[in-house]
Amino acid sequence: MLNFINGGVCAAQGFRAAGVHVGVKTHAAWKKDVALIVSDVDCAAAAVFTKNVVKAAPVHVDLAHLEDGKARAVIANSGNANACAPHGEEYAERMCAAAAAAIGCAAGDVLVSSTGVIGQTINIGAIEEGVPALYAALERSPEASDAAAHAIMTTDTEKKEAAVETVIGGKTVRLGGIAKGSGMIHPNMGTMLCFLTTDCAISPAMIKSALLETVNVSFNRISVDGDTSTNDTCCVLANGLAGNAAIVERGADYDAFLAAMRALCTLLAKKMASDGEGAKHLVTCTVSGAACEASAETIAKSVISSTLTKAAIFGADANWGRVLCAMGYSGETFDPNKVDVRFASAAGEIAVCGKGRGLDFDEELAKKILTEHDVEILISMGEGEAACTCWGCDITYDYIKINGDYRT
Amino acid sequence: MLNFINGGVCAAQGFRAAGVHVGVKTHAAWKKDVALIVSDVDCAAAAVFTKNVVKAAPVHVDLAHLEDGKARAVIANSGNANACAPHGEEYAERMCAAAAAAIGCAAGDVLVSSTGVIGQTINIGAIEEGVPALYAALERSPEASDAAAHAIMTTDTEKKEAAVETVIGGKTVRLGGIAKGSGMIHPNMGTMLCFLTTDCAISPAMIKSALLETVNVSFNRISVDGDTSTNDTCCVLANGLAGNAAIVERGADYDAFLAAMRALCTLLAKKMASDGEGAKHLVTCTVSGAACEASAETIAKSVISSTLTKAAIFGADANWGRVLCAMGYSGETFDPNKVDVRFASAAGEIAVCGKGRGLDFDEELAKKILTEHDVEILISMGEGEAACTCWGCDITYDYIKINGDYRT
Repeated sequence: MLNFINGGVCAAQGFRAAGVHVGVKTHAAWKKDVALIVSDVDCAAAAVFTKNVVKAAPVHVDLAHLEDGKARAVIANSGNANACAPHGEEYAERMCAAAAAAIGCAAGDVLVSSTGVIGQTINIGAIEEGVPALYAALERSPEASDAAAHAIMTTDTEKKEAAVETVIGGKTVRLGGIAKGSGMIHPNMGTMLCFLTTDCAISPAMIKSALLETVNVSFNRISVDGDTSTNDTCCVLANGLAGNAAIVERGADYDAFLAAMRALCTLLAKKMASDGEGAKHLVTCTVSGAACEASAETIAKSVISSTLTKAAIFGADANWGRVLCAMGYSGETFDPNKVDVRFASAAGEIAVCGKGRGLDFDEELAKKILTEHDVEILISMGEGEAACTCWGCDITYDYIKINGDYRT
Repeated sequence: MLNFINGGVCAAQGFRAAGVHVGVKTHAAWKKDVALIVSDVDCAAAAVFTKNVVKAAPVHVDLAHLEDGKARAVIANSGNANACAPHGEEYAERMCAAAAAAIGCAAGDVLVSSTGVIGQTINIGAIEEGVPALYAALERSPEASDAAAHAIMTTDTEKKEAAVETVIGGKTVRLGGIAKGSGMIHPNMGTMLCFLTTDCAISPAMIKSALLETVNVSFNRISVDGDTSTNDTCCVLANGLAGNAAIVERGADYDAFLAAMRALCTLLAKKMASDGEGAKHLVTCTVSGAACEASAETIAKSVISSTLTKAAIFGADANWGRVLCAMGYSGETFDPNKVDVRFASAAGEIAVCGKGRGLDFDEELAKKILTEHDVEILISMGEGEAACTCWGCDITYDYIKINGDYRT
């Protein structure tokens, strides 16, 4: 049993959130720019970070703060990435210290994230001055989660927020999250941040394991532009207030929790792909009949990452040759003469390539199918039984507009 | 001594060329769509092809025809890639046979290339009917090379043609080429084709070696959009008419030939990058102070391939954070705190990042520098003595326009 519910990061018991404007974003005084998420009690905590060699200061600070596998709160700002900038780690630590002073916990129990422009000094004064008001705004409500979700947005056009409810060991367990950006932890575009909260009782080791097993099949299966940011972070706080027997090893309870976490993060990942900078389409690519899941994943990712395929989807052009082309340079070995390709959406489904050769198809119907917002590319390999789905978006004039003058 | 000269593929002695319209391109009757290059005598020949698993029919045919290391001619069409299409290899062989019948040589001594849409049946009838006129148009003149260069263009806005002259063993040796597309042999965008001719006397083994050593430092160092086509081909015909003592092993003569070939192909590669679909800028990225050349190359390629960096160049935005970001996800290990970054062009040079941190710089001057057509990104790693230069272009609205509706 698994239900999607409201409340985002405030869905789980014992979590409060807030999002306010303190002045990191100077060009828009009405735009929230700092978020805070606080648990009433200590949490088992885990996080995964960007694989970029150039890591932002908050990533280094979080790695240190997570050594003990626990945390109480997350503070995050948008408008400045605090990466490759003077005093980076010092200021990231000061963000934690400011939050900790308000909460009444150790600075080492606060995690910190930043997203925005690289290389500029973060306005730490504005953040420190703003923390008391931020703390005062904390609430356990859908509105509070909404405020936090908005406070971490940069070029996002929609907030990303979701929550699920499941039953573990006879207890109702809730898991919620907010996220921003679009892309994979690796590779990735503009920064991806995701903060998850749960009242599940689970050990630090098992929450870390669940997070890794979730990220691999959700955020790591989306792509917007193949760029991996310096700041990507996905972290989870588990405060145990659901009262279930703590999950300390693999088994039915762990599986139930993992299923909930995967459902939640897959939904957030799809929201990210769908809101890729300038995107007009969510593109879902499912590769089936592959030799193994890893091969299916590599091929699906190559297709959704292909700039030429993305441009074709933007133009609603059923250019399946580019799909085959992207499969072919994925690095995987396969027989092109066994490949079938179909395009599908709410408007219908159409076979465009059979056994590696073009099929006659209705161009009008193909256009209609590809004009829908949610478009599917269905590939059958004829090699085996494995399958994988990845998500991406089209590339548009707006992507270039947004990124042609992001910094200034 | 090395001089750039006129004449393209007709610069070398004993080579004639032609380009005509036969009807493969149906939408524009005035657009040349088939090219022919013929040597008066048999040539040592070599080629490198796409690494894409999905290979177009002509690539398979050429691999067979080059088994003996010799050839007399190249026939190439634009408007249809003859990839993933019915009767692909049969029709590619018929193109060779038609050319061979006109020339009076074996079909196995003709190489064939195609570029254009994937998955549609090529109009072999139009090509076969057009070959007599194509053959009749053969000439050794700059105009004939120009016609051939135009006949292989698809979305190219400018023909790519060049030739060099050098002295080997006391004899004047000429080497010329025409090319189309933009990208690397691997990875690559829309198809890249390059046909080289030389009157140098050189063995099949050494011409193959020189081609590989050239492609690796020229066409493999450019990128437009990271897509690798099914048709990419770079081939060379060497007819020996310069009368030099045949090059059959490494040594001074081989080095002189290699230097000429590299100069020629680097120039053609830069023309390709500069004419990337929709591009407004040629972007040259030089990484110096790297631990080794391979590392420098990987980092430089990652920078010129980054969609975010390309969008910043389009916007003349000195967003050096994206340069560091792309370096960081290149897969190479380095210390970000040793990295310096400068932007340069005919308008000046400006340091934007020192020891991994942002420097104060004149935004007006930066804008002026990045508004020039030819823009340089200069990266100093502080790790060692190795360096490498790669070439790319910006990403523009026109790239998306061109590729959003290419097929129909």
